[in-house]
Amino acid sequence: MDQLLRVQNFTVSSDGVAAREDQSLERPFGHGIDPGELFAWAGATASWPGRTEPGGSRGLDDYFTRDFSHHIGAEIMGRNKFGPQRGPWRDHEWRGWWGDEPPFHTPVFVLTHHERPSITLSDTTFHFVDGDPATVLARAREAARGKDVRLGGGVTTIREFLDADLVDTLHIAVSPVKLGPGLRLWDSPDDLRDRFHLDTVPSPSGVTHHLFWRK
Amino acid sequence: MDQLLRVQNFTVSSDGVAAREDQSLERPFGHGIDPGELFAWAGATASWPGRTEPGGSRGLDDYFTRDFSHHIGAEIMGRNKFGPQRGPWRDHEWRGWWGDEPPFHTPVFVLTHHERPSITLSDTTFHFVDGDPATVLARAREAARGKDVRLGGGVTTIREFLDADLVDTLHIAVSPVKLGPGLRLWDSPDDLRDRFHLDTVPSPSGVTHHLFWRK
Repeated sequence: MDQLLRVQNFTVSSDGVAAREDQSLERPFGHGIDPGELFAWAGATASWPGRTEPGGSRGLDDYFTRDFSHHIGAEIMGRNKFGPQRGPWRDHEWRGWWGDEPPFHTPVFVLTHHERPSITLSDTTFHFVDGDPATVLARAREAARGKDVRLGGGVTTIREFLDADLVDTLHIAVSPVKLGPGLRLWDSPDDLRDRFHLDTVPSPSGVTHHLFWRK
Repeated sequence: MDQLLRVQNFTVSSDGVAAREDQSLERPFGHGIDPGELFAWAGATASWPGRTEPGGSRGLDDYFTRDFSHHIGAEIMGRNKFGPQRGPWRDHEWRGWWGDEPPFHTPVFVLTHHERPSITLSDTTFHFVDGDPATVLARAREAARGKDVRLGGGVTTIREFLDADLVDTLHIAVSPVKLGPGLRLWDSPDDLRDRFHLDTVPSPSGVTHHLFWRK
């Protein structure tokens, strides 16, 4: 079986925005973007990894929330998903947003021009790699030991891998919220239809799941 | 985490029929029911276990096809799903419809008043058990080692476990085909709404996925 490169549970606004450029420690998604609101569809499900009490829905949104880790053996993410710093690392104290138990449970390859030693937190290991998308993907595939690789975002990273024609499937949840200026995945989902099939699936929660797979 | 009892990828006609009573070796679903037609939505997906050549869709229907085995540690099925025989076994030659590589890959508990020795075929072991739903479920949960249990059908078995209030979630694909007389899961999906939440999700393939979870 092929090892796919999959975008999973990536959420954008109705106008295609996932984050803003003024990311900071206090605002991981930038000014005026409340991740709780953007990810409310997933947070309401029984399978949400951050759930602290029982309950949650087991309908359509739960299928996608669960699928985040199914058959995934590695993740690739951009440096700005890992942290708000820019340029050379001042020190190695920053270990990501996720505390001692990151929700990845696999090797994670962080794209950066400023390499640093790998970090292991519980069952997640972050590797810091400089390289073109195809080279980094080859490394992630090897680490994934036969399983698929998740492309974790953000927008800039996904667009880079789309430009290199390396993405096999995308699950993008489009939230009903409009965000205005920001880092934009697309002008319209139709932008990808020359290369991908598309199923558009409205959920009772208000988001519309967009499922793309290569033609 | 709870061990759920889940109905997965169970397909019925628009009028709620999954099979007919005149099941035979030649017609596993009974006269006039073509399983290829009923399961066309799953057969067209990339993840269909019976797929012999590459290709297939990776849209909405593929999510459900893949979910068939996710986090499942055992199955419970009625005897009529296992084979067309009725009454005492004349011999033990019948080993199910699925050949040497059954698609279950876990212990399977076959409900029957006529017990016989267990059979192992590849990584599937069939156990033949006589008992009320709660007792059989307890056995299946133990065999599932922390994972969920799939309730595999047919209709009579699903209704028995619903009557005993043991089912946690159901995924029922309703095909656009109308079948008329037969073994009927429901008069209408609304029959279950007193005890279950329901998401109704139309797929571009023509089936409508019904996702139920306990209130």
